[in-house]
Amino acid sequence: MVNPPKQTIGVCYYPEHWPESRWDEDARLMVAAGITHVRIGEFAWSKLEPNPGEYRFDWLDASFEVLHRHGLKVVLGTPTATPPKWLVDQMPDMLAVDENGHVRGFGSRRHYCFSHEDYRKECARITTQFAKRYGNHPALIAWQTDNEYGCHDTVISFSEAALKGFRNWLAQKYQSPDAMNRAWGNVFWSMEYRSFDEVELPNLTVTEANPSHLMDFRRYSSDQVKSFNKLQTDIIRKYSSAPIGHNFMGSYTDFDHYAVSEDLDIATWDSYPIGFLDRDSSDDENKARYLGVGDPDLQAFHHDLYRACGQQRNGAADGRWWVMEQQPGPVNWAPYNPAPYPGAVELWAWEAFSAGAELVSYFRWRQPSFAQEQMHEALLLPNGEFNEGYHVCEKVSKLLESMEAKAQVERADVALVFDYESQWAWEIQPQGRDFSYIELIMRYYRALRRYGINADVIPATKEAIANRKLLVMPGMFNVSHELAEALASSKATILAGPRSGSKDENFQIVQDLPPGALRELMDIKITRVESRPPTSPVPLEDDFAFEGWREFVTAGEEVSASMRSEDGHDGVFENDRMIYLAGRPNAPLADHIIKTALEKAGIVAERLHRDIRLRDNNGIRYIFNYGPETVDCSEIIGGSELEFGEVKLVPRSVTAFRL
Amino acid sequence: MVNPPKQTIGVCYYPEHWPESRWDEDARLMVAAGITHVRIGEFAWSKLEPNPGEYRFDWLDASFEVLHRHGLKVVLGTPTATPPKWLVDQMPDMLAVDENGHVRGFGSRRHYCFSHEDYRKECARITTQFAKRYGNHPALIAWQTDNEYGCHDTVISFSEAALKGFRNWLAQKYQSPDAMNRAWGNVFWSMEYRSFDEVELPNLTVTEANPSHLMDFRRYSSDQVKSFNKLQTDIIRKYSSAPIGHNFMGSYTDFDHYAVSEDLDIATWDSYPIGFLDRDSSDDENKARYLGVGDPDLQAFHHDLYRACGQQRNGAADGRWWVMEQQPGPVNWAPYNPAPYPGAVELWAWEAFSAGAELVSYFRWRQPSFAQEQMHEALLLPNGEFNEGYHVCEKVSKLLESMEAKAQVERADVALVFDYESQWAWEIQPQGRDFSYIELIMRYYRALRRYGINADVIPATKEAIANRKLLVMPGMFNVSHELAEALASSKATILAGPRSGSKDENFQIVQDLPPGALRELMDIKITRVESRPPTSPVPLEDDFAFEGWREFVTAGEEVSASMRSEDGHDGVFENDRMIYLAGRPNAPLADHIIKTALEKAGIVAERLHRDIRLRDNNGIRYIFNYGPETVDCSEIIGGSELEFGEVKLVPRSVTAFRL
Amino acid sequence: MVNPPKQTIGVCYYPEHWPESRWDEDARLMVAAGITHVRIGEFAWSKLEPNPGEYRFDWLDASFEVLHRHGLKVVLGTPTATPPKWLVDQMPDMLAVDENGHVRGFGSRRHYCFSHEDYRKECARITTQFAKRYGNHPALIAWQTDNEYGCHDTVISFSEAALKGFRNWLAQKYQSPDAMNRAWGNVFWSMEYRSFDEVELPNLTVTEANPSHLMDFRRYSSDQVKSFNKLQTDIIRKYSSAPIGHNFMGSYTDFDHYAVSEDLDIATWDSYPIGFLDRDSSDDENKARYLGVGDPDLQAFHHDLYRACGQQRNGAADGRWWVMEQQPGPVNWAPYNPAPYPGAVELWAWEAFSAGAELVSYFRWRQPSFAQEQMHEALLLPNGEFNEGYHVCEKVSKLLESMEAKAQVERADVALVFDYESQWAWEIQPQGRDFSYIELIMRYYRALRRYGINADVIPATKEAIANRKLLVMPGMFNVSHELAEALASSKATILAGPRSGSKDENFQIVQDLPPGALRELMDIKITRVESRPPTSPVPLEDDFAFEGWREFVTAGEEVSASMRSEDGHDGVFENDRMIYLAGRPNAPLADHIIKTALEKAGIVAERLHRDIRLRDNNGIRYIFNYGPETVDCSEIIGGSELEFGEVKLVPRSVTAFRL
Repeated sequence: MVNPPKQTIGVCYYPEHWPESRWDEDARLMVAAGITHVRIGEFAWSKLEPNPGEYRFDWLDASFEVLHRHGLKVVLGTPTATPPKWLVDQMPDMLAVDENGHVRGFGSRRHYCFSHEDYRKECARITTQFAKRYGNHPALIAWQTDNEYGCHDTVISFSEAALKGFRNWLAQKYQSPDAMNRAWGNVFWSMEYRSFDEVELPNLTVTEANPSHLMDFRRYSSDQVKSFNKLQTDIIRKYSSAPIGHNFMGSYTDFDHYAVSEDLDIATWDSYPIGFLDRDSSDDENKARYLGVGDPDLQAFHHDLYRACGQQRNGAADGRWWVMEQQPGPVNWAPYNPAPYPGAVELWAWEAFSAGAELVSYFRWRQPSFAQEQMHEALLLPNGEFNEGYHVCEKVSKLLESMEAKAQVERADVALVFDYESQWAWEIQPQGRDFSYIELIMRYYRALRRYGINADVIPATKEAIANRKLLVMPGMFNVSHELAEALASSKATILAGPRSGSKDENFQIVQDLPPGALRELMDIKITRVESRPPTSPVPLEDDFAFEGWREFVTAGEEVSASMRSEDGHDGVFENDRMIYLAGRPNAPLADHIIKTALEKAGIVAERLHRDIRLRDNNGIRYIFNYGPETVDCSEIIGGSELEFGEVKLVPRSVTAFRL
Repeated sequence: MVNPPKQTIGVCYYPEHWPESRWDEDARLMVAAGITHVRIGEFAWSKLEPNPGEYRFDWLDASFEVLHRHGLKVVLGTPTATPPKWLVDQMPDMLAVDENGHVRGFGSRRHYCFSHEDYRKECARITTQFAKRYGNHPALIAWQTDNEYGCHDTVISFSEAALKGFRNWLAQKYQSPDAMNRAWGNVFWSMEYRSFDEVELPNLTVTEANPSHLMDFRRYSSDQVKSFNKLQTDIIRKYSSAPIGHNFMGSYTDFDHYAVSEDLDIATWDSYPIGFLDRDSSDDENKARYLGVGDPDLQAFHHDLYRACGQQRNGAADGRWWVMEQQPGPVNWAPYNPAPYPGAVELWAWEAFSAGAELVSYFRWRQPSFAQEQMHEALLLPNGEFNEGYHVCEKVSKLLESMEAKAQVERADVALVFDYESQWAWEIQPQGRDFSYIELIMRYYRALRRYGINADVIPATKEAIANRKLLVMPGMFNVSHELAEALASSKATILAGPRSGSKDENFQIVQDLPPGALRELMDIKITRVESRPPTSPVPLEDDFAFEGWREFVTAGEEVSASMRSEDGHDGVFENDRMIYLAGRPNAPLADHIIKTALEKAGIVAERLHRDIRLRDNNGIRYIFNYGPETVDCSEIIGGSELEFGEVKLVPRSVTAFRL
Repeated sequence: MVNPPKQTIGVCYYPEHWPESRWDEDARLMVAAGITHVRIGEFAWSKLEPNPGEYRFDWLDASFEVLHRHGLKVVLGTPTATPPKWLVDQMPDMLAVDENGHVRGFGSRRHYCFSHEDYRKECARITTQFAKRYGNHPALIAWQTDNEYGCHDTVISFSEAALKGFRNWLAQKYQSPDAMNRAWGNVFWSMEYRSFDEVELPNLTVTEANPSHLMDFRRYSSDQVKSFNKLQTDIIRKYSSAPIGHNFMGSYTDFDHYAVSEDLDIATWDSYPIGFLDRDSSDDENKARYLGVGDPDLQAFHHDLYRACGQQRNGAADGRWWVMEQQPGPVNWAPYNPAPYPGAVELWAWEAFSAGAELVSYFRWRQPSFAQEQMHEALLLPNGEFNEGYHVCEKVSKLLESMEAKAQVERADVALVFDYESQWAWEIQPQGRDFSYIELIMRYYRALRRYGINADVIPATKEAIANRKLLVMPGMFNVSHELAEALASSKATILAGPRSGSKDENFQIVQDLPPGALRELMDIKITRVESRPPTSPVPLEDDFAFEGWREFVTAGEEVSASMRSEDGHDGVFENDRMIYLAGRPNAPLADHIIKTALEKAGIVAERLHRDIRLRDNNGIRYIFNYGPETVDCSEIIGGSELEFGEVKLVPRSVTAFRL
C-alpha cells in the first residue's frame, strides 16, 4: 500500500440496550478514550422491524446522528444473525437441524439454515433496507455482514433445505450419478446411486459415511456460507461504496474463509485470548502458565491467517484486516473465565497492531445487566463506570498517535500453508483419534514463533506461494499437479509431511501412493501409516519423537534419510529442494526441523526465551513477554531507542523499537 | 411442641408383592422388631384399578386389617407415581418429554408430565377413592402423596402440555409481552416476543437460552409440582384428618421443597447415605474413607433442611419430619453399591433421631426377587429370612424405648440459608464449569459441623432468619430489599459471599453492581468476578485459597479488608455487622472463616476430630464416629453418664449422654 | 474327524473394485502366495441388481471363471448386509432404529432391521438367485451368509417392525399376559399389562426398564438373527451342497452365536488383534506392551469360542472353524491404528492354525483407494504392489505345506463355560458400573493360558460339559436344575462364582438365594453382594484381592472356607466337588484359584513366562512369544526337534515342535 492506514481503536456498541438519554455521554466517553470506530446494528432486527414489514429506523438514525456529531465512524452490521420470532414462525423450516436430526430452535441466535432459500430472500430484503438507508451516510466507514458465520456450529445443517441444496450442488458438480459414484467409490458397500435424488445427507448412517460423501457435504456447506454472504455484499455494493467486512472467529474452520473473503474488502476477526485458551487447549501446563494472558501463539496465528484473508479481494501484499471484537476482561462462554493478568489487555492490542491490524475494536462498550452475555465484561461496567479496558484504550490510543502507527507489514520470506479442505479431510478421517490438522499446523507455527520468525499464513495458491524462501506445508490433503508445479518452479525450500499430498480431490488415496504430486519434488513413497496412542510415541534420536502419527517411507537414491527410530525406520527425508517429515513432531523435533529448514532456506534465526515473541510492522519491532517472569531483552534490542516499554520486560508486557 | 412425639421405627411394605398367607407373619415380625409405622399403597395403581374404573380394593382392605390387628399404624401412599399402562395409552401426551425432545415412555415409573391437565384429573379421581375409603381407618396414621417427586429428573419436562402451561404462567406473571421482554432483556439478540404464544420452551436452542427465560421455566416447573401436590392434599383433607407428608429426596433441588411443604404436615425424605456418596461425590479421598458409611455431613444437612421444610405449614420451631426411607444395606442404583460397614446402619438411625426425626422408616421390609429393585437390600432377605437391618431395628427400637426418646430440637443460634432459586440460578449460569450452589453451601455446612455446631438450614424468610446469632448466606442469588432490611434489623452477624445478592429477581445483574441490597449492610462493590480451573486456585495466606471462584472488590472506608492474595487482591471484608468472603473457600479457609464468624457472633466452638460429629436433641448429646479409627471422646463427654455407647468410640459408632 | 482337513490360506477379494483386466494377474499372484480360498460377492448387491429385478451376474460369472481357471476355490457371500438405495427407498421402515429413536439410515452398511418381514423377503429373493446360479459351480467351496451380523450394534433395533415382532414373540412364549406379568414381576411399579399389545420396547423409559423385560427383548433380538440367517441357509441348502459359514466378530455378544451356528457348517470369525486391543482394552499397561501384536489371550479366546460354535451343527469334537478375515496391517477403525510389530502377522496365523483353524483368510487382497476402508491395509498396496502381508502368506503357506499341517485339536480336559445370556444379564444388571461378564470370563481364561492350559470354551450344554476334568463357570446367570444335575453327575471339578447361578430364567433372584441349583453341589448361600469402586478393592491374603465385586457367604459344615478378608469374610469355599470364589479376582488371585482348581482336578501345570503362550494341534506344540524380549524356551521344548522357529524366541515369534 502506498498510503498505509493509521492504526486506531474501535468498539462494539448496542445503543438499543440503553436509554437514548445516555447516548451522548457514551459518545463523549468514547472519543475521550481515543476510540474512532463504532460497530452498531447487528442483532437489532426485532427492534428495526418489530412486525412484518413495519420498519422502525428512527432510533438507528438517531444513533448515527449522535455518533456522527462526535466525529465517530460507524461500522454497520446487518442483523441477519438474529431473525425475529415472527419470521421463524412464518417459516419454521428455516431452522437448522443438527447431526441427530433435532431442530435448532429460536431463543438465542444464529437460528437459521444457510441453505434456506426463503430465509435468504428475507435477508436480502432487510439488507436492502439497510444499504439504501445508510449506504451513503457520512458517518459510515464500513459494513459488516451478519455476525460470526458458523458460531455455535451452525454451518453444517442437516435440514430439508440442505438436503435439497446438496442434491442440486452434486448434480451441478458431477452432471451424472455415475460420475459421482466413480468419484466417491460407491461400488464399495453397494452405495451406488441411480439419481442425485437418492443421495442423503451424511448423518445418522449406521456407521461412518463415505469420506468422499462427507467431504462434498463439507464443501457444499462452506459454499452456502459464501453465497449467503455474497447475496448481502452484492446488495450493499449497489447502494454503498463503503468497504465490507465480516467478523470471523478463532479456531473455527467449518467454511473456507479465503473463499468468503473474496467477496469482502476487509477481513476482521473476534479475538478472545483467554476464552480460547481454556476452550481450545488441551495442554494443562500451557493453560496454567498463560491462564490470564492466553496462548502466546494462537492469536498471532489468526492475525496472520486473517491478514491473508484480507488479501483475497484487494490483492494487497499485506491485506486489510481488523480485530473486530477484542476481549477486554473475563468473558462468559469458556469452561472457566479467568480475569486477564495486569498488562494482558494492552499486550493483546499490540500483538494485533504489530501484525498489521488497522483497527482493534473492543467487545463491547458496556456490560449489559441482562440476557446471555451479562457476565461478559466490557469497557464500562454495567453501571456505566469505567472498567479496566477503558483505561487501556486511553493509553494505547495515545501511544498509537505519538508513534504515528500505520498498518504496513511486509511480505514474509516464510509462509505456512493453511488449507480449509485439509482441516475437513482430517476431521473426516483422522485415522488416529487425536489427529488434528490445525493442531499439526500449530506445531510448526509455534516453532517458527519460537525462532522469532514473522511468517505469513497462506492459502495454497500460486500467488500466495510465490516469492518465498521457505514454504511449510504439513498435512496438505490434496496437492494438485498445478500446485506441485508451482512449488517446483518456485525457488523456495519446501518443508512437508506428514500426510501432505496423500489424497486426490475426490478423497481417494493418490495414484501410486502418497505424497502424490509432491513426488515431482522428491522421490519418496509412503507405503504405510500408523497412528498411535499418546502413551506410545515413537522415540527417535535424543529427545526427538513422533507423537501419534508415523509414516513408513521408501526413498529414491538421491534422497538422504536420517532421524532413525529405535525400531529402525528413518523419519526425515531431504533432497536439495525439500524436506519431508514422516510423522507428527513433538516440540523439540518441531524446533529442530524448522531450524533445519530455515538454514536450508538461508534464513538466520535464534531460539527465543520460551515466553518471548517478536513481530515487525512498519519498521517497528515489538517484543512481547507472555510469561510470569521479567526477561532482559537487551540482546534483541541492541542499542536501539525504544518507542515505548522497557528493556527488562516485566510479565505480560510489550516493548517497541524502530528497526 | 408441648408434647414432643416419641421417636420410633417404621418400614415400607408392599403386601401386593407377597402371598396373602405371609402377611400375618410379616406383621408379627415387624412388631417383634419394634416397628410401629408401615407405609403401603404407593405404586399399586394397576393392582387397585386393573381396568379403567374397575376398582379392586379388597386386598388393600385386607392389608389394613392385618396391620391393624397387630397394632401397626399405616402410612398410606397415593399411587400416582405409577399410572397403569391403560391410562398412558388413553392419553399418550401425558408423558414427559426430555430436553432432546424424546418422549419418556412407560416401562418403569414416574411416566407423567406434571403439567398435563387430564392426568391431574385422573390423579384427583384415584386420590378421592383412596381418601374416601381409608381416610378414617383407625390404623391410618398419615398420608404420603405420590412418591419422590422429581426422581429420575422428571420435574422439568419439555412436553406440549408444559409449553401450553408455561405460556399461561408467563401471561399471568407478566400481563403483557412488553413487560416480559423488559424483564428478560429480550432486546438482546432480537429475542423480543409479540405475544406469549410466541414463547418456546428453552430447550434445543442454538446456543444457551436467555437465563431469565430459563429461570422462569424453572420457576414454572417447580410451581407445577406444588399445584400437583396440592390437588391431592386438598382432596385428602376433605375426607381425612390424618397428617400428610411426601417423601423428598437427597441432593435433589429441581423444585422448591419449602413451597411444596406449605401444603404438607410432615416433611419426610429418603436417606441413602452410601448411594449418595458414590453418586453425588466427586471427592475420591472422601469416597474411599467413608465408602461403607456415607458422607459424614450430607445426611445431616438434609435432616436439617427437611426439618425446616416441616416448619412451613405447622410453624413449629422444630418442624415435623421423618426419614421415610432409610437404607438398610447395599442398594442397586448407584454406580457402585458397597455394603454398609458394621455399625453404619445403626449410626444412620441415630443421626436422624438426634436431628429430631419422629420416625426412621426402612426401605423396605423384604427384598423382592423380581423387577428393577431386586438388588436393593431390605430388612428381610428375598427368602424371608432376617437380614442385618432387621436386627438393627430390634436394637434401636429397644434403646429408643429405654431412653424415652422424643423428637425435640431447639432453634439453633446459627442458621445457614439454603435457597432453591439460587440453586437454579447457578445451574443456569455457573460461569465456571464446576460452580455449584449446593456444593458451595456444603463447604460452609461442613465447616460448621467440624466445629460441632448444630445449625438450622433455612429458607430466606423473615421468620426463619429471626433470632439468630449467626446467619450464613453464601451464593444467595437475589437478596431483596425486604430481606436486606430484615437482615439489617436482626442482631445476627451475617456471613455472605461469594455471589450473594448479585442478581435481581429477573436474573439481571443488580443495579449499581453486586452485592446489591446487601450493600445496605456493608459498603462494598463487586467490580469483577473470575472463574478458574481446578488446577489454578488463588493462593492467599498460609494454606488458605480460593478455589474456582474469585471476586474483585472495592470497599468503603469503614470496611476492613484482609486475606490478601499473592497477586494483591483482598479476599475478606468485614465491618461490625457482616463478613463478606470474595471467593469459594478451600476447606482450611472455610474453617477459618466460620471460626471467625462464630467468634464475631459470640459463639464458642472447638474444632473436632475429622471423623467426629455432634448433635443435640431433647437434652441428649450424640457423638458420631464416621471414621476408620477408634476415637477417645472423654473430653467431649466430660464426666457425664452415657445413655448408650462407649467413651472410646470404635469406628462407625455412636455414644449418647444427657447434657 | 477321521480325515482332518489340511490347513491353508485364503483371502477376501472384491473384483468389482478393480478393472477386469487386472483379475487374471490377481489370481496368479494369489496362487503364487499359496492362497487357495477366495471370498467374493458380499456387499455387491448394487452391482448385481442395479435396478429392481434387473440382474447383472455377468461380472460375477467372470470372476468365478478367472479364479476357477487358476485353481482357486470360491467362498461366496450373500450381499444382504448392504441392500441398495432403491430398496431402502421402497421400504424406508426396513431401517433399524437406535435406542434414542433415531432411524439408522443409508450411506454405509448394515442398514436394515432384522425384524423387518419385507426385507427378509428381499433377502430370500437375492439369496435364491445366488444359490441357483452358483450353488453347483465347480469352484465353489463354501458359502457365507451376509457379513458380520451385528456389526455397528445392529442386532438391537427399536423399530416398529421390532415392536410388532417382539409382541408376537412374547405372546408365543407366555401365551397369556398374566403369565408374563408373573414372570417379569410386573406387579412392581404397576407395570402390569392387560394384553401383549400394551408392551413397549424397553427403550426411552423414564428410568431403567424391568430387567426381565430387557432380557426377553435381548432374547428376541438374538432370535431374529438366528431366523434371519436360517432363512438364507434353508434356501442355499435347497440348491447347493457346499458348506455354509458366517463371519462372526470378536468381543461381540449381542446374539447367541451357538444358536446361530446350529444352522451353519463352519464357524468363521474376523480377527483384528491390534484393532481389538485398542478398542476393547482398558488396561493401559497391556495396551502399551502389546501395542503392535495385540492381546496375547483375546484372539485365542475367540478361536476357542468359535471352535465350539463350529461344533453346534456338525457335532465334531473339534468343530470346523476358520478365520475369515485376518488383519494383515494397520486397520482404519480403532481409536488408534498402529502397525504390527515385525513378526506379529505371522504369529497371528500360527495362533489360529494351532487352535485348529482350517483356513486363515486375510482381509483383504488389495487396499482400496476409495471409500470408508481406504486406510485399511491389505496384502497388496493400493497401487497393486506387495505389502508385508503378502510375503507372510508366502512364508506361512510354504511351512503349512512342509509340515503337512492339519486341523485337528483334541477335546480339552479343561473347559470354560461362556454363555451369551449371562453376558446380556450382567449388561442389563451390572450392579457395579464396571462389572462385565466377558471381562470376568477373561480373568479366568487368562490365568488358564498363563498356566499353558489348552482349554475349550463351551456352551452350558450337557454334551459340552461331559468328559472334562475341570469346568470353570464364573458368572453363569442361570443354572438350571438340569445343568446342575449334569454337573453333579459329571466327574469334573467345578470352579464357580461370583454370581454363578444367582438368577432364574425369568431374571428373578433364585429361590432360597444364590447360588440356586448349584447348591446341589455345595451347601452355601449368598446373603449379600456388594460392588465397589476400582479404588477400593477388598484385600485378602498376600497380594490377593477382590476387585469391584464381593459376596458374603453362609456355608454348611462340610464346606471349608478360606482366604479371609481383612474385614473378616471368607472368600473361597471348597468341598470335594467344587470351589466357589466369592468375588472378582485380581490377577494373582485368578492364578491362585486356577492353580488350586487344576490341582484338585489332577492336572499338572506350570506358570509360564508372562509373554509366553502354548497351544497343541495335531501333535504339534506351538510356543508364542508376545513380548518385547527374547525368551529361552529350552525347558518347554526339552530335546524335541523343531518344526520351525528357534529355541530362543525373539520378540513376537513362534516355535513349533512335534510332541
